[in-house]
Formats: sequence, structure tokens, C-alpha cells
Amino acid sequence: MELKAKKIDIEARDQLVILNSADAEDIGLRSQDRVNVNHGENTCTTIVETSKSLVEKGDIGLVENVMEFLEVEEGSIVTIKPTGKPESVEHIKEKLDGQELSEHGIREIIQDIVNKRLSDIELSAYVSGIYSQGMNNREIKYLINAMIETGDTIEYDRHPVFDHHSIGGVPGNKITLLIVPIVASAGLMIPKTSSRAISSAGGTADIFETLAEVDLSIGEIKEIAEDVGGTIAWGGAVNLAPSDDMIIRAEYPLRIDPYPQVLASVLSKKKSAGAEYLVMDIPVGANTKVENIELGRKYARDFVSLSEDIGIETSCALSYGGQPIGNTIGPAIEAKEALMALEGKEVPSSLIEKSTTLAGMVLEKGGIRDGKEEAKKLLESGEALEKMKQIIERQRGDPEISSEDIEIGKHSKKIYSDEEGYVDSINNDEIIKIVRAAGGPNSKKAGIMLNKKKGDKVEIDEQKYTIYSEYKSKLKEAIDLANHLKPLKVEGMILETHPDIKNI
Amino acid sequence: MELKAKKIDIEARDQLVILNSADAEDIGLRSQDRVNVNHGENTCTTIVETSKSLVEKGDIGLVENVMEFLEVEEGSIVTIKPTGKPESVEHIKEKLDGQELSEHGIREIIQDIVNKRLSDIELSAYVSGIYSQGMNNREIKYLINAMIETGDTIEYDRHPVFDHHSIGGVPGNKITLLIVPIVASAGLMIPKTSSRAISSAGGTADIFETLAEVDLSIGEIKEIAEDVGGTIAWGGAVNLAPSDDMIIRAEYPLRIDPYPQVLASVLSKKKSAGAEYLVMDIPVGANTKVENIELGRKYARDFVSLSEDIGIETSCALSYGGQPIGNTIGPAIEAKEALMALEGKEVPSSLIEKSTTLAGMVLEKGGIRDGKEEAKKLLESGEALEKMKQIIERQRGDPEISSEDIEIGKHSKKIYSDEEGYVDSINNDEIIKIVRAAGGPNSKKAGIMLNKKKGDKVEIDEQKYTIYSEYKSKLKEAIDLANHLKPLKVEGMILETHPDIKNI
Repeated sequence: MELKAKKIDIEARDQLVILNSADAEDIGLRSQDRVNVNHGENTCTTIVETSKSLVEKGDIGLVENVMEFLEVEEGSIVTIKPTGKPESVEHIKEKLDGQELSEHGIREIIQDIVNKRLSDIELSAYVSGIYSQGMNNREIKYLINAMIETGDTIEYDRHPVFDHHSIGGVPGNKITLLIVPIVASAGLMIPKTSSRAISSAGGTADIFETLAEVDLSIGEIKEIAEDVGGTIAWGGAVNLAPSDDMIIRAEYPLRIDPYPQVLASVLSKKKSAGAEYLVMDIPVGANTKVENIELGRKYARDFVSLSEDIGIETSCALSYGGQPIGNTIGPAIEAKEALMALEGKEVPSSLIEKSTTLAGMVLEKGGIRDGKEEAKKLLESGEALEKMKQIIERQRGDPEISSEDIEIGKHSKKIYSDEEGYVDSINNDEIIKIVRAAGGPNSKKAGIMLNKKKGDKVEIDEQKYTIYSEYKSKLKEAIDLANHLKPLKVEGMILETHPDIKNI
Repeated sequence: MELKAKKIDIEARDQLVILNSADAEDIGLRSQDRVNVNHGENTCTTIVETSKSLVEKGDIGLVENVMEFLEVEEGSIVTIKPTGKPESVEHIKEKLDGQELSEHGIREIIQDIVNKRLSDIELSAYVSGIYSQGMNNREIKYLINAMIETGDTIEYDRHPVFDHHSIGGVPGNKITLLIVPIVASAGLMIPKTSSRAISSAGGTADIFETLAEVDLSIGEIKEIAEDVGGTIAWGGAVNLAPSDDMIIRAEYPLRIDPYPQVLASVLSKKKSAGAEYLVMDIPVGANTKVENIELGRKYARDFVSLSEDIGIETSCALSYGGQPIGNTIGPAIEAKEALMALEGKEVPSSLIEKSTTLAGMVLEKGGIRDGKEEAKKLLESGEALEKMKQIIERQRGDPEISSEDIEIGKHSKKIYSDEEGYVDSINNDEIIKIVRAAGGPNSKKAGIMLNKKKGDKVEIDEQKYTIYSEYKSKLKEAIDLANHLKPLKVEGMILETHPDIKNI
């Protein structure tokens, strides 16, 4: 069938043509079927949507990158031909059936994801299948390799390449903003690529973006890391294991992080980014990604063993994830706290403890003895802050920025305690939900500042925490949610009294 | 945020607004998030897509039914407010986690599906979860009830109401076109609602649509059935358990039929359609929905037991599904064969056998003894054909149509055998794929006519079957596929000869 091209733009639907319903029926196509679209010597396969009015009979709606690929102008004639589903859909079904996938099957799926040949329905079935049925380590290794092969890699002239990663899930985990400058100031090279938030209140890339640009090219990452020793870049801006970000399209709305996909995402990114030595932080605690120590150990074993298979020497630390790290949660407010730590201002000792322990593990991999002590020295001496300023400058941020300069949401609300006692628990998940209700991580200035943490004594009418938001309406939503959820549980020392023997 | 309404039409995305990317970022929204859209006293919740050019800054793209619901004209101002995910997404995640769903959770999911509040990603996760993790009978009962409650029901004045259903999976299963007129000509009332094809080469509604209209209203179904005793209508045209057709949106591209969903789909439709006595056909065979007799028995047990729970008396027959029923596969060509059977022309005896057995089971439920013998008599006497003509006429078809009048694809290709022997097997799945490649079921005239069936002797250069298509290009695709798949396996009686003792 010959049709006239018309430009249609819907983001995140990169492989889509829209046909007039009558044309679709004529050629025997329905919504979600696939066609080959041909123009001159160029052909691509895309998913079909149908419309009675968006596209007239005889026209075809093409998204921008399909037009570019086909080298088509508006008004040009293209020909379409119905075609079948890609083979990868059969492999996705195998996984839903609980079967082990072959190396070939996994490669087909990842290639189709990267080339945006799968519809949302098919992509979601892949994510659901992996989540529901799991993968063994052989499959995960194939998955890692397929994810690496379908993207770019960074090759450094300077070696060795150190790296660090936290699998996240615990709010307030701004430790990368301490670890990278500490390690780099010790003279080791640590080029860190980070992700943006999937289901959290802010990924490291979201946080550091409030201080500097994180959309760096591979060339920039290489140059900055080799010159300065460290960098913090958004992994999604470069084409390292790009399938990961496409898979997130389905993980995000479902808020699921399938176990095999977590392993494969981290290790494919790290390998593509050139890592040779890796220190992993695995936070463990209720309402984090890793809820108990057994699962934490399983992750540690699988990370070490899969790393070895792909040529990375990895150590893991299971860290306490039972409440947020430090006092702040949200992109800008976390950048502020990290900078305060580098400036030597008072921050919770647990934040310093965790950051220097992990930075110390990296230093020891680099042959530096007493790594943790050394990390503390680099932090206290201001050398890490100096290094951070160099990194910020090289990433086009303001190197003179101080923690006081960082702006957070202009609307705020202090939350007070209506009871007396001790903070018995802080629910990570609920804290994240409140920050998200306040607009985070899309709105960088949304966040929470905790005045009380686990074990702290609280008086009636004493402040427990503050919520920040750029938007009044979102602040209200966050307050409503906070009042409903009550993420800080306060318990008195006396739980019940029984003045007489009755009704006990 | 206030925005100006602009009409956007993308079919099958009934709950969708498109925002300009800049507006979306301002308000902290990304693709797949949700907003409340408000106009005057009307508010609805929809999924957000973002676009840089389809919708200008300050405008909002609304699909037609959102505009109607909000009573909005193009150019009117609507206000939007970000909102969270529906609760049902949490329940879908519970199912992916392998948990049992509560009555409340299932109702939330089905209500959100019917009200089109779920995105493709979320809908696919539901279907994947049910497929991958299954449901127990308690959950399935809740599911059936939720599917009934969210749709209309038919209340008859005439009783009892008989019904018949085949769970499908075997190609060529045109038996409903025989059973309905046979039962109705015996004086019983059998109003049959049928589905269109999901993963088959043609559902009963697709087949009967070549003879009469199947898009009937509830009033028409009731009137025709009570007057004539029988009707064959498309279930999707009426609002009986409408969630079923929406769930198919995700099942179709994945080609999966989750077990609990099959039970719930059938029984919710039947109960909504007023059925009091039901005879189920469960075809069993390689490459059908039910591949072995054990699974067939499990279906039978669950159908009978779940039916009892919702007040239907059900009997099941496991039928032979190891090859297509009759000689024809495809909408028009199956209607032709069914009409030939009613006209007393020669058709495969297995088609008559199966149809009269099942029709006989219905007759016996209605108190008629020797049901199968009685069914045969009604067929041979021409009474069933007379009844069929009445039904066709009442459904605005041509009652004078004969099997010879039915047109099938104008392009055809005879497939010959290149070997001598016996047909060892006919692969159902491959036959369906070839008919679909030829354009079916969207194109009604696509189909296959088998000249040989299992056990038949085949000579070299003897015709095995013919492929029909309305489109030359699709015929070519079907031929290529047929040559590649070879759905009819021919084996000689002598598999090997060993003239001497060597190399055995």
C-alpha cells in the first residue's frame, strides 16, 4: 500500500506509525500489528496504531526518527507491507512459561528492546516475566553480555579503573558525592556513571545535577576522569548498555526491579564504563530493595561471581538500610548535605561512617593501606572538597558553590510530633512516597529534612521533619500523605499500664 | 495548570491526554504518569503522553471520549492536576509476586480495566502475572463476578436458556453454526454470543459474520432468541463482561491465553448472557489451547465447579483436537462448509459427528432423550437448515444464501505433495499461522481448504490443500510460510530399508 507521509510526534514511542482505520482494515492490519515501511532504499519495521481522524485516508503518520531513518520528507510517498512479530516475542513468552532462555533468545530480546521494536505490551511482558519467573546465573551472564554488546563502551588510556555502585533502595543515599572526590583525591581514577531515579526519590545523577551537568559524552567522561581522577555522569546520556533505560520505561510505572535485571543492569553498565575494580554497596533494611540480610548475601555472591565471569574484581559491603542515610532526602537537599560533609560542617556521623568505609574499600583495592582511615583524612583535610570543586568545574558547574547556596523548594511545612517518646522506626518507602508527592525527583527542589532519626527522643510539639516543594499544590498533597502515612513511628517507653488486675 | 483543549484521536487509547513536553516538565509529569483533568463539574483521570510538536505549549490533546465525558469543546480551557497511580497497580504487582489476590483487589483491577484507567504497560503486567502465576478457584470466582458486575446482563422472559461454548484452539471448529440451528429447531432456546479470533484463524463471530450481521444489541438478541429459538451474535458488540475484550488487547499481541482468564472469560460471558444450562466443548490435541487430556479434565472440573458457584449447570465434552475440524479453515470458507453440512451436502463425517454429539448433549439437558440421534434427524430432515435461514434473516443476512454463493479469496494456490505416503499429522498451529499470513481473520476471505487429512494416502504431485487470499502479497507470504512450515507431514509406510547388513 502506498501512503503519503505526515509527521507525528509522540515521545517515547520511537517506532510507531499511525494509519487511518479504513486503510488499516483494507490491508488487514489492526492496532499493535507490525508493518515494514519502505522509502527508496530504506526499510524499517514499526508497530501500527490506527486512528479515524489523526491521519487521513491515504496518509501515514510517522514519528520523527522513523522519518529520519527512512530519509522521508512530509508529503513523500512510502509503501507499507504487513509483517509478523519479531522472534523475541516468542522468547518473552518462553520466560512467562517459566523456561530458561538461551543466549540467542536473550540477545534477540535485548536487540529488539534497543532497536525499539517492541510495543509497551511486549516490553511489559518481558519485565513482568523476568520479575515473576527469575533467571539463573547463566541467563544473567548472557543478559549482561547482550546489554553490553548493544551499546558503546569506554576504553581508558589510564589504568586501573576503579568504580563504586550502590544498588539503592534506601533514601538519602548521597554517598557517591563523598566517595568519588575522596578516592580521586587519593590519586586513583574513579569515573562514576550513575542513574536517575526509577522508583526512588532521586538517583545520584539527579542529585549531582543540582551542582553540575551530568549529561556528558564518552569523550568528556574519559578526559575529565583521566585529568582529574573522578567524574559523576549520568549513564543514560551516553550509550552504555542503553537497553537498561528502555527497560526502565516498563519498570517505572510498575515500580518493580526484577532481581536478574538489577544484577545485569549494574554489571553491564559498569563493564561498558570500563570498570576493572568495583566496590558495591548493598543497603539492607525493611522497605529497601534488599529487605533482609539473606537476600543481601545472595546479591553479594551473585555480584562477585558474575563480575568474575566478565572480568571485574568486585567487593561488596552490606550496609544498614533500615532508615534514610543522613538527614536529607530529595535531589537538591541531598546535594546540600553532601557538600556540607565535604566542607567539614556537621552532618550525621553515620553518613561519614558509611562513605569513608566504602571509599576506604576502593582505596585498599588500589593498594592503599588502612583505607578507611586514609579516606577520613582526605575528607577532614579538605582535599576531597578541593577535588569535588575540580570535578564540578570540569562538569560546567560553579566550583565556588557552597552548601549554603543550594536552593530547595520555596514552599515548606514543618511536621510536629503529637506524642512523646522515641522514634521507633522511619519507613523508607513512605518517606520516598512523600518526596515524590512533593514533586521529586522530576522537581529537583522537592525533599525532606529529618530532625529526628531512629532512637531519638521526641517531645510533644517538637519538630520531626520538614517537607519542601516548589509547588503549593504538591506540597499540600505531600502533607496530606505524610499525615496519613506517619512515616516516623514514635513509641513511649511505657506501652501500656494496668493499674488493676482487670482487663489485662 | 490551565490548558486549551485540542482534539486528538488515537484508537484503542481511550484514556490518554497529550501534553507539550515543556508543560509536562513544568508540572513535574513524565510519560506514563497520570493527571486529573477537570472541566466544569466533570473530572476524569487519564494517562499522560508527552510530545514536542503534536500539541503546542498551553494546549492539551484529548481523545474523543475524554472530550465527551468532560463535555469539552475544542478551544475550551481545562485544568489538570497530577495524581498517583490507581490502587489496582499495587494488586497487579501482588500477583507478579505470586500472592493470592483478594476479592477487593480483583474488583479494583477489573474496574480499572473496564474504565480504561490502566496503561498498556500495566494491562500487560496483569495478563503476564495471571499467565505466569495463575489463580486459585476462589480468585477465579471473584474474577468472574467482577467481570459480570462491570457489564450488562441479559434477562430473558423465556426459560430455560441453553448455551454452548467451545474453548477453541482447534482450527476449523465451525460447529456452532450447526449446533445452534439444530437445538433451536428442536424447540429449545439457545442464544449464542461468540467471540472474534484472538490467536486463531477466525472466531465463530468472524465466521458467521460472512452470512449475517453479528453486531446485535441486547434487545435484538433477546427478541430474536425468544422468537426463533436461536441467534449467533458477537459478544463484543454488547456490553457483556466488557473487560474481556479489553484484556484481549494485551493477550492478542503476546498470543497468550492465561488459564484463569480463559475460565473467567467464558463463564462471565455466559452468566451475563443469561445461560442456565451450558455444554462446553474442550478440544484436546497438540498445538491447541489444551494439549493433553489431563489439562482437558482439569478445565472440565473447574468449569463444572465454578459454574455451580455462579448458578449454571454445565456439562463438558473433551473432543479430538489433534487436527482441524472438517476440511476448511478461515472465516468465509468455514461458513461455506457449515452451510454445506446443513444443506445435506458431503462434508467430513467427523464434523457431523462432533456437532450432533454436542447438540445432543444440549437436547438432553432440555429433557429430549437420545439427544444425538435426535440432532442427526433434525440435520438430515432439513429442519436445522430452515432454522438457520430464519436466524440469518433475523440477523439481516440473505436467507436464500446457499453454500455455493459464499465468496472466498480471489487469489489461490494449490499445494501439491512432493512425496508419497500417508498424512501422519497436521499441525494446527502452523495451519493457523498460514491462514493469518494469508490475511485472516481480518480479511474474511482468507483460508485453507484441506484435500487430505490425517491418515489419508497421498501420491506424488497429488494436491494436499489450497490457500486462499484476497491479496496477492499476502498469498505470497502464506505460500512462503507454507513451504517453510510444511504443516501436513507425510510419512511412507517404509521408513528405511537396509538391503545389506552394513551401516544399520
